[in-house]
Amino acid sequence: MIDRSAATVAAIGEHALIERLERRVGRHPAWVVRGIGDDAALVEPPRGELDVLAADSLIEDVHFRRRWTAPADIGRKALAVNLSDLAAMGATPRACLLSLGLPADLPVRDFDSLLDGLLELAEASRSPLVGGNIARSPGPLVIDVTVLGSVRRRRALRRSGARPGDELYVTGVLGGALAGLRLLERGLDRGTATAGLLACLERYERPAPRLRTGRLVGRQGCASAAIDLSDGLADGVRQLAHASGVGAILMAAAVPADPGAVEAAGLLGRSPLDLAVAGGEDYELLFAVPRRRRGAFFASVGRAGEATATRIGSLTRASGVLIEVDGEQRELVASGFEHFGGRTWI
Amino acid sequence: MIDRSAATVAAIGEHALIERLERRVGRHPAWVVRGIGDDAALVEPPRGELDVLAADSLIEDVHFRRRWTAPADIGRKALAVNLSDLAAMGATPRACLLSLGLPADLPVRDFDSLLDGLLELAEASRSPLVGGNIARSPGPLVIDVTVLGSVRRRRALRRSGARPGDELYVTGVLGGALAGLRLLERGLDRGTATAGLLACLERYERPAPRLRTGRLVGRQGCASAAIDLSDGLADGVRQLAHASGVGAILMAAAVPADPGAVEAAGLLGRSPLDLAVAGGEDYELLFAVPRRRRGAFFASVGRAGEATATRIGSLTRASGVLIEVDGEQRELVASGFEHFGGRTWI
Repeated sequence: MIDRSAATVAAIGEHALIERLERRVGRHPAWVVRGIGDDAALVEPPRGELDVLAADSLIEDVHFRRRWTAPADIGRKALAVNLSDLAAMGATPRACLLSLGLPADLPVRDFDSLLDGLLELAEASRSPLVGGNIARSPGPLVIDVTVLGSVRRRRALRRSGARPGDELYVTGVLGGALAGLRLLERGLDRGTATAGLLACLERYERPAPRLRTGRLVGRQGCASAAIDLSDGLADGVRQLAHASGVGAILMAAAVPADPGAVEAAGLLGRSPLDLAVAGGEDYELLFAVPRRRRGAFFASVGRAGEATATRIGSLTRASGVLIEVDGEQRELVASGFEHFGGRTWI
Repeated sequence: MIDRSAATVAAIGEHALIERLERRVGRHPAWVVRGIGDDAALVEPPRGELDVLAADSLIEDVHFRRRWTAPADIGRKALAVNLSDLAAMGATPRACLLSLGLPADLPVRDFDSLLDGLLELAEASRSPLVGGNIARSPGPLVIDVTVLGSVRRRRALRRSGARPGDELYVTGVLGGALAGLRLLERGLDRGTATAGLLACLERYERPAPRLRTGRLVGRQGCASAAIDLSDGLADGVRQLAHASGVGAILMAAAVPADPGAVEAAGLLGRSPLDLAVAGGEDYELLFAVPRRRRGAFFASVGRAGEATATRIGSLTRASGVLIEVDGEQRELVASGFEHFGGRTWI
């Protein structure tokens, strides 16, 4: 018997690829009226809720490298970064679509793994794959995902809505993903790396969207604004403050650096704070919380059980975004964010 | 003053591109609760209707060439091919998302034009741009569009549902787009080309999704199945018959060849029938219509005012798809479809 998974996608052709894809997609939840196999998918919206839509792509050699990251993790991440956008809106995922641009030399085995990685997260997050398309790419592997979610209108978390005096909270720890990326660039040997450094790679390659946290905080109405940290803390604070028409001040000492990033910082010749503030792709959430909602906020975050929340600053009446380091306030610089690739505009 | 539109996208950077994009997006219709500028878009579904979702991409040198086709037409087509999928479901468009992968050397002026072309059709079809992302591409220009529409559950047109005895109808005329593509490949001089040949280029570069036709036929419940002809007539008939579990027979003499394709056929050394049957990208609609609904069907198509409908065959109890040419029936070959690029799997 021939192992067709050892061939390239060009060798087996698009019909065979589509069959492989369809075989991998399991049963749909009840709200998917029609999934793959028609001109478009039919999905039933929950009564009285809004549709929530986001699209984000991963492009080879811009957002990932095939020689660094396993295909399953690339596929998984393409969906994860989109689910993080739904989390930041307080939305519940309902479906996803996938557009693939495949280089001719991509092994079928990698195509299969990429789908398996994406579909595993699609199942875990209840966002079934309902459509999309496959085309060949004369250049990089391109993976574009669109997610559909839903949220009650008054429970949607936006970037705008925060007020002076609201407190700023971030989930989890920061800087791990950027440390992971820089370690990959330096050719870190996974075989001999410490647990802390491996955790940085894991943060970079397998981000965990904070879906339950976003949803529960949104439902309890305890945040005045929220954004996901795809482009890093500095960028997130600036975007949230700008959209809300307020200023912000961060306390550097309060910013929760990823323990792995702290360990990596020395190797990389950078400070842990620098990694935590400038580093993108951690996919944690940033919330603005009115003081009187603080208790309800912590209760929601605790109930979600995904990550702790840390208070890192406040929103201010003054314009501008400041950071206080060792008792001195300075402007948080605009060019502070770093990650591997492009920039999302929604 | 510096003409920034003469620069490349890499030279002006992503922030400036996003600003240019945001400036171009106009006011949203009332159902868009939140468009560009947050982690995700919020769109209100019409009460009691299903969400309809499709995604399709255009990749440079696979689906288009920059030296052949104006940027505005490329942007417009990226949305048009998706709207055609909504038309085939009988759905009404509500919003679109755009993911762009931009080569560094793309002139800003082309970026602007591409958006202008897409946004013009977005406005005309009432499918406002509500989100997406911009990234750089180390290779081809990649334009991936997702559309959201809505349809009443019982009015959705599917590929399945046709029965033996139902009649097959196609809108408009066929083969023009393939003729246009082949003429472009041969370096047709637009300056000296006849009106018929220019019409072929127009069919290829500026397809017109049959949105009103699909919607009205769907609403009147006069088709048992439908599909859009993105991959050509032969492929469309086969897909519809397969999904419905029936066979089909086409009458070659009834297939409405595009007059431009008839004129081009000689130049291209092919028969007009061949172009009309094998050619993809005409983006006409194929309907299966129960005999007793024929009158209502023609009334709906006429009211839509987009294109006439022509009866080209019937669905049969026997399996397989046949075509009758000069009184002889033969199998419609599977490899019959041709277009520039990849293949859609939804």
